[in-house]
Amino acid sequence: MLGYYGPAGTFTHQALQTFSGDEAIPFDTVGQALDAVRSGAVEAALVPIENSVEGGVTVTLDNLSDGRRLMIVREVILPVQFTLFARPGTGIGDVRRVLTHPHAAAQVRGWLAANVPLASVTEGGSTAAAAKEVSDPTSKYDAAVSAEVAGRMYGLDPLATGIADNPSAVTRFVLVSKPAPPPPPTGADKTTLVAYMHADRPGALLEILEQFAGRGVNLCRIESRPTKTGLGNYCFSIDAEGHMREPRLAEAMLGLHRICEDVVFLGSYPRADGVRPKVGWGFTDSDFAEARGWFSSLVNPEDDD
Amino acid sequence: MLGYYGPAGTFTHQALQTFSGDEAIPFDTVGQALDAVRSGAVEAALVPIENSVEGGVTVTLDNLSDGRRLMIVREVILPVQFTLFARPGTGIGDVRRVLTHPHAAAQVRGWLAANVPLASVTEGGSTAAAAKEVSDPTSKYDAAVSAEVAGRMYGLDPLATGIADNPSAVTRFVLVSKPAPPPPPTGADKTTLVAYMHADRPGALLEILEQFAGRGVNLCRIESRPTKTGLGNYCFSIDAEGHMREPRLAEAMLGLHRICEDVVFLGSYPRADGVRPKVGWGFTDSDFAEARGWFSSLVNPEDDD
Amino acid sequence: MLGYYGPAGTFTHQALQTFSGDEAIPFDTVGQALDAVRSGAVEAALVPIENSVEGGVTVTLDNLSDGRRLMIVREVILPVQFTLFARPGTGIGDVRRVLTHPHAAAQVRGWLAANVPLASVTEGGSTAAAAKEVSDPTSKYDAAVSAEVAGRMYGLDPLATGIADNPSAVTRFVLVSKPAPPPPPTGADKTTLVAYMHADRPGALLEILEQFAGRGVNLCRIESRPTKTGLGNYCFSIDAEGHMREPRLAEAMLGLHRICEDVVFLGSYPRADGVRPKVGWGFTDSDFAEARGWFSSLVNPEDDD
Amino acid sequence: MLGYYGPAGTFTHQALQTFSGDEAIPFDTVGQALDAVRSGAVEAALVPIENSVEGGVTVTLDNLSDGRRLMIVREVILPVQFTLFARPGTGIGDVRRVLTHPHAAAQVRGWLAANVPLASVTEGGSTAAAAKEVSDPTSKYDAAVSAEVAGRMYGLDPLATGIADNPSAVTRFVLVSKPAPPPPPTGADKTTLVAYMHADRPGALLEILEQFAGRGVNLCRIESRPTKTGLGNYCFSIDAEGHMREPRLAEAMLGLHRICEDVVFLGSYPRADGVRPKVGWGFTDSDFAEARGWFSSLVNPEDDD
Repeated sequence: MLGYYGPAGTFTHQALQTFSGDEAIPFDTVGQALDAVRSGAVEAALVPIENSVEGGVTVTLDNLSDGRRLMIVREVILPVQFTLFARPGTGIGDVRRVLTHPHAAAQVRGWLAANVPLASVTEGGSTAAAAKEVSDPTSKYDAAVSAEVAGRMYGLDPLATGIADNPSAVTRFVLVSKPAPPPPPTGADKTTLVAYMHADRPGALLEILEQFAGRGVNLCRIESRPTKTGLGNYCFSIDAEGHMREPRLAEAMLGLHRICEDVVFLGSYPRADGVRPKVGWGFTDSDFAEARGWFSSLVNPEDDD
Repeated sequence: MLGYYGPAGTFTHQALQTFSGDEAIPFDTVGQALDAVRSGAVEAALVPIENSVEGGVTVTLDNLSDGRRLMIVREVILPVQFTLFARPGTGIGDVRRVLTHPHAAAQVRGWLAANVPLASVTEGGSTAAAAKEVSDPTSKYDAAVSAEVAGRMYGLDPLATGIADNPSAVTRFVLVSKPAPPPPPTGADKTTLVAYMHADRPGALLEILEQFAGRGVNLCRIESRPTKTGLGNYCFSIDAEGHMREPRLAEAMLGLHRICEDVVFLGSYPRADGVRPKVGWGFTDSDFAEARGWFSSLVNPEDDD
Repeated sequence: MLGYYGPAGTFTHQALQTFSGDEAIPFDTVGQALDAVRSGAVEAALVPIENSVEGGVTVTLDNLSDGRRLMIVREVILPVQFTLFARPGTGIGDVRRVLTHPHAAAQVRGWLAANVPLASVTEGGSTAAAAKEVSDPTSKYDAAVSAEVAGRMYGLDPLATGIADNPSAVTRFVLVSKPAPPPPPTGADKTTLVAYMHADRPGALLEILEQFAGRGVNLCRIESRPTKTGLGNYCFSIDAEGHMREPRLAEAMLGLHRICEDVVFLGSYPRADGVRPKVGWGFTDSDFAEARGWFSSLVNPEDDD
Repeated sequence: MLGYYGPAGTFTHQALQTFSGDEAIPFDTVGQALDAVRSGAVEAALVPIENSVEGGVTVTLDNLSDGRRLMIVREVILPVQFTLFARPGTGIGDVRRVLTHPHAAAQVRGWLAANVPLASVTEGGSTAAAAKEVSDPTSKYDAAVSAEVAGRMYGLDPLATGIADNPSAVTRFVLVSKPAPPPPPTGADKTTLVAYMHADRPGALLEILEQFAGRGVNLCRIESRPTKTGLGNYCFSIDAEGHMREPRLAEAMLGLHRICEDVVFLGSYPRADGVRPKVGWGFTDSDFAEARGWFSSLVNPEDDD
């Protein structure tokens, strides 16, 4: 059984349905969803981790870094596509009262002003709850702005889709399980790590980045988070291109471990976008294998030349 | 007239009183406070920018980066010290109902459980509002957890001070004005910048850091913020040690400008902690001056040797 | 009047004739030629500085670094092309005894063995002296291997040209004058510097290279020379792409001066090969100018936005 | 049987006697000595590799890089101490004619001028040959400047020792054998490598140095040598602190192999000076071992936490 950050009908729920049709358990908070994985109540849980507009989801980043070890096994990237839903029979010209969540309201403000200029907008608990409320024939609201899954769930009709003012906004979700041997590399993988600097080493972030750059590994994401021990004490949440079983990334991780106070490994898993890294000159798997072969020949040079 | 992120009686208000005894205007949001500076309604405004537990205050970071140019002219660092306040005559043994803001509740949970174990805690709008409510003799609440300034403001008696579970938590505030020539260096200054990477250059963050490291400039804070144009597109909010009129920092800023899509300068101002940087070998003002003198002698070498 | 490392008829003489038809004074040693510049006996002197087979000409490198300041104002690159010369009337089939300098002998050994297999080779004082000797009708030698200029000088006939076993070998010569304002940039220039590391700083060479790489400046040549103060104490003789009046190179030189024990500037002058540098992204003259403009606007921001 | 760069009585001979009292074979050139190792004619040969005044001994560096693989197994560092020798019975006041090698003459010129001002100096074939000549009672020379070993060998009396004008000059010699498994680390070792850059990669030297710096490995010596393929094409002869069986050096060598056109390993052997490296923070053997342990635990995380 899988869990997810609920309630049912939100974007996380919709993201879950992109890869699983089974029943799943919604949790009220990210923390509860992840603790259910830790306790074994669910096998894995889907939670949001990054939003192209708001940035990292700090509650997820901090819980994964600080709590008992978990591991990311999959990522899902979902366009933040809002739909205006109404009860069957309602036309777009009939809409006077719209209900939605404050974040959603902020992201469709321009579209509503241009397309349903007479409607007032009320901000409520969640986009899913808004859809549920509107599905009640006695509701005083005519329409809800929600994810597509919520409208379907409550039997509503879409009046307009793709109404976000910034149509390129996406949210990234991760499926989190207990630690296990990472899945084999696919050639288009991502590795998530949290690096804790030694507090008294200026230039530590530069050294951290050089561990990756020096092995030809690009980063997809790097975010600082306070370690809660004082202003200016940070850890870094990092998504690196590649899989821990690829030698360039393995060596970067080993280097990171040597220079950092602590390194948390949060998984190597296939990239949702399937993009394969451009591996720099000198950093392919065979470059590493050839170097190993050469080095071995030095240790026992009898057959050399 | 100064403004601040209100309401009156919050920590920002208390931070303001550390350097100004004059009347000041509270604003409901950080955005409103900063827009009042832009419009000229207030001369400058104090807003929170960084918290040792929660990290950067994203609304402040994003507004300063994205909006019409403003400039930081001062910083204040304030310990997050909570006080338990009651109406005069109430003893600590009498406390049964405590009112406070949810964030504050979270930070004093341990202390309350240990010291007023019989009290229930209710979470309300702001710590200042809690103090005001408790000051009403007809209130059903016996005590409020708030900043020291709020208790004084509403005529309450402190029952216990310094009750935060993490006693080292601090918040950093900045006083923001319209752009102006920066104040002269004091020798213990900080410079705040926002650097926008070119999206298509892997390794750009490394190059950004090298601009500073290569001139012996340490960073106090670096935080990534999404540029809202897509996953993985970041800008970096940076506090660097030193003043833009010191040559090592000037050269680092020039270098940054050359390699970045955009650089936003948010001010050079005295550090609240008065810490003077340890200037690395080869990077003192006189090292720069001697190098300039040498270079000039090459252009016109008549008197050389 | 110019001087050169003689005697007349050697490759240095031939290199001199590529740019000057005037009478010039040969000197027996590189040191004597350079001292004649220092004393004013000649206006400038041409000396060899680098050979594609042997490497740097250490006597030239050391004299330029250590002695009273001089400046390179021009470079000449000459293919090391040997010619087999004989008195008029001698055919290649008649050659039994060949005279030349030991270095030249080493570089044409294969050709002689293949083409005049019956000839014995005698090694003497200089290729020019060999040509002179062969020009004597009473000489016991039939042919000389020398530079083209020497054969012409002594009225000999070329039997075969381009007879070096490694046909791509070249020598680089520099014309050296007293210090003067460097000539204006041509867009395809080279700058020669000698950097003395602080002896007690491991990693100093890395720092030296970063001064150039960090400003997008490529190096054409870098050679270590002992400072004669102990094993492992080196200075570095460097040719960098560009002119000291180009901002990226100026800034690199200033940076070098700050971190080095000493820096000797030996001139900015046009490259013999006319190759223009590929200036990296962010390092063009206009990138530097724009950064300066931006910085100035911060100091006096009234008209900003 | 060992060989050495002769003739008997030179400094190389004296260096050999510091560690071996057995009969050994002198060779006329460094190339002949090394070829005798390659052919098996001698077990190993001692040759000079570096001089604190002149720099690298290029014939040795080039032969080791270019020829059939050999390996350095020991180094000897010898002060260049010249002695003035005469036949028994000759006093220093009697010396009118001194014979020595040109290099030696250059290094004792000041001392001779000050102490035997009436003597003329003649430059001959080798310091050992000078001592031999002077030992002949019919010789026209009164004294020779040579290594101490030569004077003893020919029964001469020392008139003055330590007469070099630069008393700190030293020469470094290496004992070279056929490739074999390197001796075990002593904790104070040196590793000699030759790195060939890819010709078309500007900045390649910086990358080479970063392979060492990025693993906390200091360099004792780095010298450029032309690859004889064109101006500006270099290889680098490098002595690094440490042994190829120490993980930081092993990883640096592997990295070097990946980015270079070719890497020649010339041995890991004890340092003559016994200096142990200051291993940087994060680069000790146990730092490497702990990182490996951590990485292994990720691959099979069952027992984690």
